[in-house]
Amino acid sequence: MPEPRVVTLTTDFGLDDAFVGVMHGVILNIEPAAKVVDLCHSVRSYDLLDGAWTIAQAYKFFPPRTVHVVVVDPGVGSERRPILVETEQYVLVAPDNGVLSMVGAREPKFVVRHITAERRFLQPVSQTFHGRDVFAPVAGWLSKGVDPAEFGPEISDYIRLQLPQPARSDGEKRLRGAVVKVDKFGNLITNIGVVDAPELFEATTSSVRISIAGQTVTRMCRSYAEGGKGELFAILGSSGYLEIAANQASAAAMLNAAVGTPVNITE
Amino acid sequence: MPEPRVVTLTTDFGLDDAFVGVMHGVILNIEPAAKVVDLCHSVRSYDLLDGAWTIAQAYKFFPPRTVHVVVVDPGVGSERRPILVETEQYVLVAPDNGVLSMVGAREPKFVVRHITAERRFLQPVSQTFHGRDVFAPVAGWLSKGVDPAEFGPEISDYIRLQLPQPARSDGEKRLRGAVVKVDKFGNLITNIGVVDAPELFEATTSSVRISIAGQTVTRMCRSYAEGGKGELFAILGSSGYLEIAANQASAAAMLNAAVGTPVNITE
Amino acid sequence: MPEPRVVTLTTDFGLDDAFVGVMHGVILNIEPAAKVVDLCHSVRSYDLLDGAWTIAQAYKFFPPRTVHVVVVDPGVGSERRPILVETEQYVLVAPDNGVLSMVGAREPKFVVRHITAERRFLQPVSQTFHGRDVFAPVAGWLSKGVDPAEFGPEISDYIRLQLPQPARSDGEKRLRGAVVKVDKFGNLITNIGVVDAPELFEATTSSVRISIAGQTVTRMCRSYAEGGKGELFAILGSSGYLEIAANQASAAAMLNAAVGTPVNITE
Repeated sequence: MPEPRVVTLTTDFGLDDAFVGVMHGVILNIEPAAKVVDLCHSVRSYDLLDGAWTIAQAYKFFPPRTVHVVVVDPGVGSERRPILVETEQYVLVAPDNGVLSMVGAREPKFVVRHITAERRFLQPVSQTFHGRDVFAPVAGWLSKGVDPAEFGPEISDYIRLQLPQPARSDGEKRLRGAVVKVDKFGNLITNIGVVDAPELFEATTSSVRISIAGQTVTRMCRSYAEGGKGELFAILGSSGYLEIAANQASAAAMLNAAVGTPVNITE
Repeated sequence: MPEPRVVTLTTDFGLDDAFVGVMHGVILNIEPAAKVVDLCHSVRSYDLLDGAWTIAQAYKFFPPRTVHVVVVDPGVGSERRPILVETEQYVLVAPDNGVLSMVGAREPKFVVRHITAERRFLQPVSQTFHGRDVFAPVAGWLSKGVDPAEFGPEISDYIRLQLPQPARSDGEKRLRGAVVKVDKFGNLITNIGVVDAPELFEATTSSVRISIAGQTVTRMCRSYAEGGKGELFAILGSSGYLEIAANQASAAAMLNAAVGTPVNITE
Repeated sequence: MPEPRVVTLTTDFGLDDAFVGVMHGVILNIEPAAKVVDLCHSVRSYDLLDGAWTIAQAYKFFPPRTVHVVVVDPGVGSERRPILVETEQYVLVAPDNGVLSMVGAREPKFVVRHITAERRFLQPVSQTFHGRDVFAPVAGWLSKGVDPAEFGPEISDYIRLQLPQPARSDGEKRLRGAVVKVDKFGNLITNIGVVDAPELFEATTSSVRISIAGQTVTRMCRSYAEGGKGELFAILGSSGYLEIAANQASAAAMLNAAVGTPVNITE
């Protein structure tokens, strides 16, 4: 007997309603052996970039053959298509609005299908909750072993989001990035990754010059605990991106910074 | 080997404490094969109507034989009885305070038992946490296959809540309802269902006349995305009830409306 | 085939990020049969005492052989050690910062190991997220059956926290304690347990004299529902400690009390 497959759920539904619980029910009703995991339900409402970021940082930590469901879906009930994506190791299910773009940018294999197999949906399909009526049942059938090809034809005109990338300027000396996420502790996660500025993340690097929200951060720490009380510092975050942080304090509050705040590495 | 049974948990406990986690532990300690699903833990504190609404919109999406546990329990530790209900497809466990009334209004079979089998409880039973000491263990034993009849005698004097229903007036021309739920996106879910006003929900209906919070909503949309920026509109929600909504904005905030706000269909 | 093992997660990560979801993925990638339970993710940020309290009240409700993971880890990435603890029934995994001290105070067997088996970690180990890179994989391998002794040598110099204990004064007549937790309902949970003041909790006790936040509470109730509207009372909480509570109201708000507020039993 094969191992039961994992199905993850990433949405902007929050946990104040029964939306997420109901999706679990729909999946288990189709495949009682599925292991349904709540990956994150706090994507900012309607925010495709936040959804794209969230799934991209997380999907590779799951077992091969996991079905990842991503529902950030401001176009629910409109003409936007539901899609299914096969990568080398995973299957992803989402609305066709670019929320899988950051996964797409990382995967050599990225086969996209328009989900047209309405017989796999919960009937009647509502106008407002395709998480329940379309995406959860498709994930249920996938986890039960239905072949992705049975859900609909391959397409190439799926939507790709423009992902915010850090840019070089001043003859390559200055790197301009931005905060893309503020975590629960107030750490400011930027879009400046190891590939963008390898010199920042060398083991011997301890001084930097980073402008953010009118202040300059000059120290690179190896752990949060290394920072002094009330000190802002830079650190390599767990997803491979530069973070601005503080030791047991919120860098976001100290800097009054948020998603979108520019972060400039000035030398 | 039969499929492991699903146990769902619906409470007003929130997730800030370990209450819910401990209930998972108690159930798994009795039946390690149970699949415990968090249906919703954000029922408003002590609010039986909110609990009744939450479980009624959700329970049918789970596999047959699921055990649904509902703990909204302001009378914990007092003389209020624990009950167990059998419907055609499900078993429900809850305090006898009416929180299952809306499920009861929908189910042709609704056999209620007073749970008296104290040997099935965790000992000693606390005064303040029957979710852990009474309802979770009963759910554990049910999911392990213990016959509902073994938990106590059938009763008919269980508590039924008066559920808020929309009313006709003005010679049937006016329908008076109310907001019963505000979801995470600020959509205002009313108690006006398809059976109450079928004309509202016909495929060709696009104009309505709905008074709420001093404003008049005149458009019926087929999807959230159909609405214009800043426009309030009506839509058929995923549970079969009229919603007042806005496209990527909170109708609740725009109208300063909340649970209990009257909603009148005026023609 | 043995029952799949339960792994519980207790952290201060909250649910706004994908941190917790990713830990589920890491564990399931190592042991697909594990049952991962979210015990509590609302430990106050960096608060070791709150973490110690949370796991100590909850861990015994889980099946024998459960692996409990506790990550409240202000020292992540520094020299603080990861540890693994065996008690008679459980295995616990945590940073060596005292967060398991309250469990240790209750367990006759408490064998602590320094986790040195880096080949069991996710590589490369990040500087900021050992929940993902160290503790989750160790829990995964433990749940798969790897012997605790394989993770590292036994140590005795692990960190023990000073736990706040109630104290007698005035020739034993006065007992001074404090609020250690405020639950979702605003109930004030103290550190005054049954063993500290058995007379308080006798079945016939109905009057007490408790000073808190400038007010005096004089009634001991058997259930929340026994309290009158707007009345503050004392009650034996579900973890065996004195609580100050109110009937369908927040004692914390009524008293403007919080964690650390002194609670004195004056006679």
